[in-house]
Amino acid sequence: MPVSPIAFFFDFSSPYSYLASTRIEALAAKHDRNLEWVPILLGPVFAMTGAKPLTDQPLKGDYARIDIPRSARFLGVPYAHPEPFPVATYQAARALVGLQRDRPELAAPWAHACFAAYFTQGRNIAEVPVLHELARDLGLDAARIDAWCADPQIKAQLKANGDRALQSGVCGAPFFIVDEEPFWGVDRLPQLDAWLTARF
Amino acid sequence: MPVSPIAFFFDFSSPYSYLASTRIEALAAKHDRNLEWVPILLGPVFAMTGAKPLTDQPLKGDYARIDIPRSARFLGVPYAHPEPFPVATYQAARALVGLQRDRPELAAPWAHACFAAYFTQGRNIAEVPVLHELARDLGLDAARIDAWCADPQIKAQLKANGDRALQSGVCGAPFFIVDEEPFWGVDRLPQLDAWLTARF
Repeated sequence: MPVSPIAFFFDFSSPYSYLASTRIEALAAKHDRNLEWVPILLGPVFAMTGAKPLTDQPLKGDYARIDIPRSARFLGVPYAHPEPFPVATYQAARALVGLQRDRPELAAPWAHACFAAYFTQGRNIAEVPVLHELARDLGLDAARIDAWCADPQIKAQLKANGDRALQSGVCGAPFFIVDEEPFWGVDRLPQLDAWLTARF
Repeated sequence: MPVSPIAFFFDFSSPYSYLASTRIEALAAKHDRNLEWVPILLGPVFAMTGAKPLTDQPLKGDYARIDIPRSARFLGVPYAHPEPFPVATYQAARALVGLQRDRPELAAPWAHACFAAYFTQGRNIAEVPVLHELARDLGLDAARIDAWCADPQIKAQLKANGDRALQSGVCGAPFFIVDEEPFWGVDRLPQLDAWLTARF
């Protein structure tokens, strides 16, 4: 029986998801697991849990502004907190879903490109011209972005990702599920690694 | 100039605080830091951040019920989720504040005793007779517990701990502050360790 992949639920506007995106592929490879990138929009999750974007929360927001860049340094990952923050990510996410359907070999590169553009270069990935630039850098016709963003099947798939997340208990991002075991947060990657090794 | 201690803000009803309590003394010793146990009541912090006890939150509650015992296994620490949960901890906290004033050599043992009673033996530390038993186990006259719980100075100190927490940006528990640098969560102990080593 083939082993199940690691499902990686994330929002392109989530700093901790970006940090996790720089580590999760190596972790999956270490354990001979495929990685399933599952873009979601955190809005519906926040509506369910009652949470708000981290930096909008009293006390937690101030803490996050210290913890996020320090966590990046701890992991040795470049980070520059973007403004505006957060931004709408449904277009970047739809493009990823489109790539997963039509050009799957470019899906992971697209995800890395979006995260890097936003969290290391301060480029606003809510703006379609920025997505066009990222597409061209991957050798894609920029018009494909517009087509995916307007494609009813793609929109429905992104919505389905969100429904799956809520049904699977995803309470924030990044969130990982493997063999039905849930792990929330980039700080759970060491535990995920140990769990895949020893099933403690 | 003497180095500042590691301030450890916690609530006796916080599972992740319990887990941290089993590790933080060794970490402080490794870096030649004193440890300052700062009991607080999470209620006012939750009122400020809008949070609720973890297990009362949609999605997050279900996740916490998996993550807490798994985190304990990951750390090699005994854990049995108590019922009822959470419980009122002002009396256990007042007793700790009293010990810090009157019998400081017993303060850390009291903290460990309260955490272990609640999170490994399911004993309800909101009940004064349970606190009496824990006191007697430490060679204390149980009547001291009642005296500390009713002592206006002790009550004021516990209140002051909470005010200090809010003013210091404490947004949950466990929370650590050292050299004005904040760390939230038992999962930040590796980062705290690295930060004290390398100031990254």
